[in-house]
This record gives sequence, structure tokens and C-alpha cells, in this order.
Amino acid sequence: MRVLGVDPGLTRCGVGVVDGSIGRPLTFVAAGVIRTPADDDLPQRLLGVEQGIERWLDEHRPEAVAVERVFAQHNVSTVIGTAQAGAVAVVCAARRGLPVVLHTPSEVKAAITGSGRADKAQVGTMVARLLRLEGPPRPADAADAVALAICHIWRGGAQARVARAQQEFARKVESVRWANER
Amino acid sequence: MRVLGVDPGLTRCGVGVVDGSIGRPLTFVAAGVIRTPADDDLPQRLLGVEQGIERWLDEHRPEAVAVERVFAQHNVSTVIGTAQAGAVAVVCAARRGLPVVLHTPSEVKAAITGSGRADKAQVGTMVARLLRLEGPPRPADAADAVALAICHIWRGGAQARVARAQQEFARKVESVRWANER
Repeated sequence: MRVLGVDPGLTRCGVGVVDGSIGRPLTFVAAGVIRTPADDDLPQRLLGVEQGIERWLDEHRPEAVAVERVFAQHNVSTVIGTAQAGAVAVVCAARRGLPVVLHTPSEVKAAITGSGRADKAQVGTMVARLLRLEGPPRPADAADAVALAICHIWRGGAQARVARAQQEFARKVESVRWANER
Repeated sequence: MRVLGVDPGLTRCGVGVVDGSIGRPLTFVAAGVIRTPADDDLPQRLLGVEQGIERWLDEHRPEAVAVERVFAQHNVSTVIGTAQAGAVAVVCAARRGLPVVLHTPSEVKAAITGSGRADKAQVGTMVARLLRLEGPPRPADAADAVALAICHIWRGGAQARVARAQQEFARKVESVRWANER
């Protein structure tokens, strides 16, 4: 499964692509940031984020997109820009019919390092280790986006297995019911 | 000038279209709300807002779009959804090359009622009076969107006059400079 992770932001929107599945080594594909000038007005900046996300989707053709979930408890001065950039990324993916999942920062940290309270350096170190890179992707927003993609491969895979098991169970119940009603 | 006002929200996104220019009577064109089901997931809801805004843009062909500016001081539990829905509306308009302007709630209230601290009922009453309607558009989100459009016609018009005056002045300065350099 190929996943695009997005760490949303107006000034720097981190993007990272990882291939992988549970229990197999992960493969690093690409990482970077979409930047929009701070002195552009909001419509131009959001349009810049949209065009950047579209380019990453076109170029890397991910099968799912993982976006960081924004909370109001975050730094209030940046939370609105983060929510706005994230919304643009979510819509770009949804418009293509791609599954989009939101993961909280602590879910990502827990998935990557084993602790929901790990710091940025620890996440970067583990990203580099898991992907067999010489160092974490730079800047930090790119590393965070890659961490989101890894988190999604691991958690999303587990979620998909649960969903399949539930469908399987529902099918069995249905066929028993059908047999009883005949 | 035809303006689409957008009072962003995930549950109810108010939209209202008004024709007008400064010093002329305003004409009410249409108002309504775009609703997305609270039990849909975020990608589906944002996609629903996008599709709704696109329909209003297609149907009414506004020349400008006015969106309410979101502040972090607002109710923190709803501010993120509001920022996300607003971002989608802003991108829809920017993608078509339409000018998008953000107005704060107090700018809108001051434009419509003369007081930045007017309550919703007062704004609704003035919207109905200015547009010669029997009552304010319903629900309140639709009335707020119409108020945004009116605010934009009045403020936007003033802003456009200032911009034109500045251009005119710059042209004169330029022609004086050109004459001096000959």
C-alpha cells in the first residue's frame, strides 16, 4: 500500500510518501514541503497548497492519504491556518475517491516510537531507522508527514483487517439467517 | 456587482447572493444553506461543502465572494470545522479566479447595522429592510451570508474606489516623472 502523509500548514505543508504493509519492511518514496509565501493573501495561499497536493497525488499515485488531525488545544495563532490547509488536502484526496484518514499527533508518535509523548527528534530518528535512511527527512514537517504515512500503513492495515473480519462475520450471520429462513 | 456571501460551517454553511453597488438599492437574488450530515466523516462533509459551493457559483455566477473570517477566540469546539469549511469555499472561488475577501463578524455587523456589537436579530432585521423582504432569510446562517454579501458590496466598493484612486495617482506621478525625464 502506498500512502501520502500530509502534515498541514500554510507556511510549510509537509508531504511524504511511503510504500509498505504490516510485517514487511517499509520503503521510502519521497518527502518534501509545499511552501506558500506569508505575504500572499489567504486565497492565493490555499490555492498554492491545493496545487502542491495535486502535484504530489499526480506524481506518486498513493492509494490512501493520512492527514494530521488538528485540535483547538494547539497553538491558537496557527490552528486556523493548519485547519484550513488540512481541509484543502482532505478535499483533494476525497475528490479522487481516495480514502482519507486523520491521525492525531500522539497516535503518530505512539505508532512510530512506542510513546505518544515522544519529541520531534525521537520521531525523526525512528523515521530514519524504519526507512533505512541516513537521517530523518528535512525539514521537520517533511519527517512528520512521513511519520503520518507510516502510522497509517500500520494502523490503517489493522483497521482494514478489523473491517474485513466484521464483514466476514456479518456474511456468516447473514448466511445462517438465510439458511434458517428457508 | 453580484456577490456570493458565505457563512462557513460544516453542519450548516450559509450562502447568499446579492446584486448591488454603492448608492443604489440592493437586490436580493437567493439565499440558503448547504448542509452536511453530522455522522458523515470529515472528508465526505468537506466534499459536500465543495459540491454545494460549486453549485451556487455555477448557478448564480457571482463576480466576487465574501467569506466570514474565522478567529481562534471563537467557540473552540466549532472553530476548526468553520475554518475547514471556509477554506473549501475560499479555494472554490480562488480556483475560478474570483476575488475573495474575508470580513470579520464585527465588520459585517457594523456595515449592516452601524454597530459592530449588534445581535443576530438586529442583523436579520436590517438585512430584510435593506433588501425589502418581508422577513430575514431563514435559517440565521442564510441571513448572515446575505449580510456578508451586502457588507462586501459596500466595503468592497469603497476599497475598489481607493485602489482606483491610488492607481490614478500613481499614473499621474508616473507621467510627471516621465515628462521630467524627457
